[in-house]
Amino acid sequence: MEGAARVIARRGVRGLRMEELAAEAGVSTALIYYHFKDRAGTLRHTLEFISDRADRYTAGEEEGAEGDARQDLEQTLLLEFQDAPEVRENSTAWGELRASAIFEPGLRADLARATLAWIHDVADLLGRIEPTIPAPELTASAERLTGLLEGLSTRWLSGALPLAHARELVSEAVALEIDRLTR
Amino acid sequence: MEGAARVIARRGVRGLRMEELAAEAGVSTALIYYHFKDRAGTLRHTLEFISDRADRYTAGEEEGAEGDARQDLEQTLLLEFQDAPEVRENSTAWGELRASAIFEPGLRADLARATLAWIHDVADLLGRIEPTIPAPELTASAERLTGLLEGLSTRWLSGALPLAHARELVSEAVALEIDRLTR
Repeated sequence: MEGAARVIARRGVRGLRMEELAAEAGVSTALIYYHFKDRAGTLRHTLEFISDRADRYTAGEEEGAEGDARQDLEQTLLLEFQDAPEVRENSTAWGELRASAIFEPGLRADLARATLAWIHDVADLLGRIEPTIPAPELTASAERLTGLLEGLSTRWLSGALPLAHARELVSEAVALEIDRLTR
Repeated sequence: MEGAARVIARRGVRGLRMEELAAEAGVSTALIYYHFKDRAGTLRHTLEFISDRADRYTAGEEEGAEGDARQDLEQTLLLEFQDAPEVRENSTAWGELRASAIFEPGLRADLARATLAWIHDVADLLGRIEPTIPAPELTASAERLTGLLEGLSTRWLSGALPLAHARELVSEAVALEIDRLTR
């Protein structure tokens, strides 16, 4: 899975050949097919792998005091914008899977599920800040924040947006959404 | 250029072959190379074509009274979310060019220029609503709104976000940004 994420981040989903992936992982093509069945299966497992990895590097400390909820949220979102090879690779692979799902309907269900889980996590953090807000409003805020993150991430990765400025835009978006929920 | 936008929207940038493009346009491959020099040149011209086309279908009436500025802005942004073949095709091709720029650095300068022009247009509309706001704040709002649009657009096109809900999220984002600028 690490090899698949690397190959996708280097060449794109459409550049992914099972032979290259096997070479990257140092195993035979037959073993890849044995484990993941086909290209679609490989992409689905890679999606799961990068989602789990993103959970890890964006996870804060164990749930702290209520007073830290806002900082936890901002931190979680900002950790998607780091000039670290793992983050760059993960974001590139996620963006590729997202963009490819337009052309590969077989990817859509798993991607929609991973997206919902992400939205749910962000809505939970928003709910910790202001526990009286109805769930649909928390979800809408989380959809906007994660949608913005995806849009800015692709701009950053394609060199159209400096990292520091992306982080400023995200911080301000968090402030706007929290202001709205708590007003 | 229309043929190129169609082929990219159908198969993705990475699926674009000059032979298929020539067949789609009903001309010889030699004529394509004569006009656009190479694949990179073709992609750059396609980017220009879809930017101009988006300007056309998102353009409102001629600049109206100040009182309409907010409606003009919302309308301009919402027109990116229409279930019309031209809009779907345009948004798909734009997303593909954006995602490809991660792997094709030759696309980046033109894409950055087109993005800046778009941000500038949205900042101008925001400035018509509240002429006393300093330009950097207008620009930051425009960057967030257009970034959100790109993120939600890819979700919509890949089947992860219903069109009507995408429009709701965008309307609310416009309201949030205007509230912030005018508070």
